Amino acid sequence: MPRAIAESARASGRQVFILALRGSSEDWVSNYPHEWVSLGETGKAFRALRAGDVGDLLLAGKVGRPKFSEIRLDAKSVMLAPRVMAAALKGDDALLRSLVDLFEREGFHVIGTAEAAPNLVADAGVLTNRRPTSNDERDIELAFKVARALGELDVGQAAIVCAGLTLAVEAAEGTDAMIARIMALPEHLRGTATNRRGVLAKALKPVQDRKTDLPVIGIQTVRNVAAVGLGGIAVEAGGALIVDKHAVAQEADKLGLFIVGVAA
Amino acid sequence: MPRAIAESARASGRQVFILALRGSSEDWVSNYPHEWVSLGETGKAFRALRAGDVGDLLLAGKVGRPKFSEIRLDAKSVMLAPRVMAAALKGDDALLRSLVDLFEREGFHVIGTAEAAPNLVADAGVLTNRRPTSNDERDIELAFKVARALGELDVGQAAIVCAGLTLAVEAAEGTDAMIARIMALPEHLRGTATNRRGVLAKALKPVQDRKTDLPVIGIQTVRNVAAVGLGGIAVEAGGALIVDKHAVAQEADKLGLFIVGVAA
Repeated sequence: MPRAIAESARASGRQVFILALRGSSEDWVSNYPHEWVSLGETGKAFRALRAGDVGDLLLAGKVGRPKFSEIRLDAKSVMLAPRVMAAALKGDDALLRSLVDLFEREGFHVIGTAEAAPNLVADAGVLTNRRPTSNDERDIELAFKVARALGELDVGQAAIVCAGLTLAVEAAEGTDAMIARIMALPEHLRGTATNRRGVLAKALKPVQDRKTDLPVIGIQTVRNVAAVGLGGIAVEAGGALIVDKHAVAQEADKLGLFIVGVAA
Repeated sequence: MPRAIAESARASGRQVFILALRGSSEDWVSNYPHEWVSLGETGKAFRALRAGDVGDLLLAGKVGRPKFSEIRLDAKSVMLAPRVMAAALKGDDALLRSLVDLFEREGFHVIGTAEAAPNLVADAGVLTNRRPTSNDERDIELAFKVARALGELDVGQAAIVCAGLTLAVEAAEGTDAMIARIMALPEHLRGTATNRRGVLAKALKPVQDRKTDLPVIGIQTVRNVAAVGLGGIAVEAGGALIVDKHAVAQEADKLGLFIVGVAA
């Protein structure tokens, strides 16, 4: 995901500098001007960003919640840690907002993926050969409703609905684990590879800062959804990212799924 | 569960007649006046209830959603099937309400478990030696909030929260499966047997007819919750059932958990 954003941002004419987090970032960062930092090296991070002449800043990628007690904090981090830890206790969204705030106080202009890499943003409309049926549309509507209700409480972004029944709801386990457990449900509640039914919806949390953590789908999401017999995927137009739309649409067509962007 | 209700109802002085569903009910029903019926034998069911001189009627136990196409419908069922199937498409609660309605139209007085077996109903207060800490109380509050938001959408009844983070939310998989997946989360997000953290809350759905499907916990819930390192269980006082309070409290004390009934 961060790689797709970097590529898209460079393709759109931006100069890209990567601040890579040790333990999370990958080798491809060496294709760009970059600096490696560890969690807790806040002072070094700010210095590197300034040396890299960074103006617009984007937070991207997934960082597991670390054990705070195992992080070695530099002086700057010690100053900032209380505020960040207090935010962390309030949930993922609060934590992300506090990080955005922290960078903005240092003078960086935090932007969202939609701005940095506009060609990743989901458009309204059907991306695939298969189109949602009216039954699918009812399931999509309910799935968004459930996902948004959860999002309001900062629980998760995704829900799976089949024939009016909510089969699964995302919390800390993440979307992939949520999709996988559909297979454990009785077959008459869900679809199968030969009779695809049900939809995965991913919605922007209503409380979510669009600068952080937009819902994202990619080719692996398509494969996971297909493997558990679902009929398709719905995302919020303008409020979700699709990594490599062309490849995602091609894979969905191969597997017989629909992908649809729905206006909020 | 149905057995505990029957015992409690008999102990409270009621005459008990059991209408036992083939494939769901168990052998203990032969301890009571009873009749066996299959799904689709609605006419026979009504006749048996009248022959058993039933006035108050209670729906109890779990019935998996059957394949409607595999049920052989008697004449009465054919008449009623369209309404029941339409309700079934709207979710579990709508289905249950339509069944309640169906029995009431036939002249039976449908009552809830709280009325039939009052000694199963959860009281307000702590049932165990261990008491919730103030951190636990914050988690309990959030877990109820999440469970009720889901309940409003007829998704599920239960949620697990640890240190302000919603770890899992119940949908079609059921409470036991939801509890089990806590073990798959990274250890710093959850508790362990030696450092119990987090709470399971089960709440009455706000849309729920109290005559049907009250949240229930029993000794197995206590064991499951203990096995994944949670600190305790919270239920809604007056809105949840505890099957064998004495044994449940004893097991929770043995395993070091709290159980608390919270006024809604």
